[in-house]
Amino acid sequence: MVDDGGEGLAVLATPYLVFLGDCVEPGYAKTAFGLRDWAGDKCVGEYRLPAATVSTGLPAMSPAEAKARGARSMVIGIANSGGKIPPAWVTALEEALAVGLDLVSGMHAKLADIPALQQAAERYGRRLVDIRKPPESLEVGTGRKRSGKRLLTVGTDCALGKKYTALAISRALADRGVDCAFRASGQTGIMIAGSGVAFDSVVVDFAAGAAEALSPDAAPDHWDVIEGQGSLFHPAYAGVSMALLHGSQPDVFVVCHDPARDCVLGNAGFPLPDIAEVIDMTIRLGSRTNPAIRCGGVALNTSSLDEDAARALMQRESERLGLPVCDPLRGGAEFEHLLDSCLAL
Amino acid sequence: MVDDGGEGLAVLATPYLVFLGDCVEPGYAKTAFGLRDWAGDKCVGEYRLPAATVSTGLPAMSPAEAKARGARSMVIGIANSGGKIPPAWVTALEEALAVGLDLVSGMHAKLADIPALQQAAERYGRRLVDIRKPPESLEVGTGRKRSGKRLLTVGTDCALGKKYTALAISRALADRGVDCAFRASGQTGIMIAGSGVAFDSVVVDFAAGAAEALSPDAAPDHWDVIEGQGSLFHPAYAGVSMALLHGSQPDVFVVCHDPARDCVLGNAGFPLPDIAEVIDMTIRLGSRTNPAIRCGGVALNTSSLDEDAARALMQRESERLGLPVCDPLRGGAEFEHLLDSCLAL
Repeated sequence: MVDDGGEGLAVLATPYLVFLGDCVEPGYAKTAFGLRDWAGDKCVGEYRLPAATVSTGLPAMSPAEAKARGARSMVIGIANSGGKIPPAWVTALEEALAVGLDLVSGMHAKLADIPALQQAAERYGRRLVDIRKPPESLEVGTGRKRSGKRLLTVGTDCALGKKYTALAISRALADRGVDCAFRASGQTGIMIAGSGVAFDSVVVDFAAGAAEALSPDAAPDHWDVIEGQGSLFHPAYAGVSMALLHGSQPDVFVVCHDPARDCVLGNAGFPLPDIAEVIDMTIRLGSRTNPAIRCGGVALNTSSLDEDAARALMQRESERLGLPVCDPLRGGAEFEHLLDSCLAL
Repeated sequence: MVDDGGEGLAVLATPYLVFLGDCVEPGYAKTAFGLRDWAGDKCVGEYRLPAATVSTGLPAMSPAEAKARGARSMVIGIANSGGKIPPAWVTALEEALAVGLDLVSGMHAKLADIPALQQAAERYGRRLVDIRKPPESLEVGTGRKRSGKRLLTVGTDCALGKKYTALAISRALADRGVDCAFRASGQTGIMIAGSGVAFDSVVVDFAAGAAEALSPDAAPDHWDVIEGQGSLFHPAYAGVSMALLHGSQPDVFVVCHDPARDCVLGNAGFPLPDIAEVIDMTIRLGSRTNPAIRCGGVALNTSSLDEDAARALMQRESERLGLPVCDPLRGGAEFEHLLDSCLAL
């Protein structure tokens, strides 16, 4: 059901109405908050059921009001445990279809598997966009060098800031007047970007090809800032990271790390690699498809530290590694140095 | 339709009747010849249409005769260009179902997409086994160390002998009385082994987990000899190789190389890595899930050389690399040295 733009890319109809369902737990609304924070220009408002207590602060409105203000999709901003679509949501989801909005979901359960939604989508001529559905029409990778410039975020582990680092870099480059685009490789990123490839549902033989499709040929001065996935040192996901590295053929990469973490998330038997080891391995493997690959710096997720401790750690790590080290979400001079380093020829 | 043994493994019903269709081109019958050469004990005979000129030399018989001799599946031994199932085969395929045989296919076109076969399978209670169909019930990898010993074939490229090297090593180890099993990661290998995981259809997030399922816990002295895929230096398939390496957690690997090849097959822009580079990278990456990983030696595909040139090359490469170098299909002392090296503690 996903418009794949001929290259396996999911392409969503924007702007969005953000659906919060009957959510009472802010932790389940991360997608909604991410959309507000990183794609506010794509969000006309939010729609909640009466039982909901969580709000993004976006203007509250009905699907009909959102449609009148230009919305083209209603996006489910909730990721509840289990990934199921509660029966209590279905009437509201049908309502959105009825007024002419597409439905977009990144949940495990598929919109298309709910007969009432499937029938409503057909009746009203709207799309049910399940972002986790494997993309179609992907090609095997070729390794062909593409025009334009590319930055990839890589990591010492999963789930420590690769998406937010790419978003922050992309936004900051745009603020500097650089022609750039955020390229999404995960569900939330795709909703924020409005398009992308859900890497976790790609068949492995096509994974590098999917990464190639994600950052196509571009103008010589254009930068694609690509959301990384996994880690080359992750026992389950190194293949994902390898394919994304080869297919992205980055000119520059930024290593993301959480100093509070010392083992692979959920897998205490695997100590995290040192940042220097990640840099070395990424250059060695990435040079296969881009011999000019280099490290632009390091992004630390310092959310576990206070401001002084965070700045002191950035300073120490920067001296140790000989590279700019920042926390993109804290910004500051360190982040500007990282951007300078990434853009340097 | 594939019995997945609860772990995503395809499990085929053996022994087989090998189907040659109306084949007149031996090049299309590689699967049939592979079954004859490497799984002769699983093949009761061959079945050909009158137009066929190619034969495996296995006893010719009808599906009914094969069933009477214990056959449980008819395997399509042909890979024609395009991967389509010709209409001329359908009656013969229905005949096999009617006498009580499963059908097994590794072709791109799916048996289950042919209505006449789907109906016959239902009517006679048989399975249509499309080996390229993505396995179900796979788990994400854990990196947990498993009991038993593992050997993985890796390569400087695709399609240069990783499957045949693993088969030859597995057979030779069995001849030495070693408790061992060939573990298949591709379509032809799965038919030969009677089970396995078709790696090229696994979703990338589950690829390492699929490799873990392929070589489960075993007795301490048991060896799993695992068919490799792709190459860590292949611009399209390095992610496949990475996941298979991490998930297989091999104690020993054997590097497969074709000395007649200097570029990645079908991709002249990518020179093949040196064997020493493959050894170094495989140890560096593989040590993440098995710190004791080591190289057992090198298997050259010397089919382009005469006997003297082949033996001279093995000698030179063995001296250069300080490892046993052989051609498993030529056998001889070099191959025995490689086996000794793989088994050495």
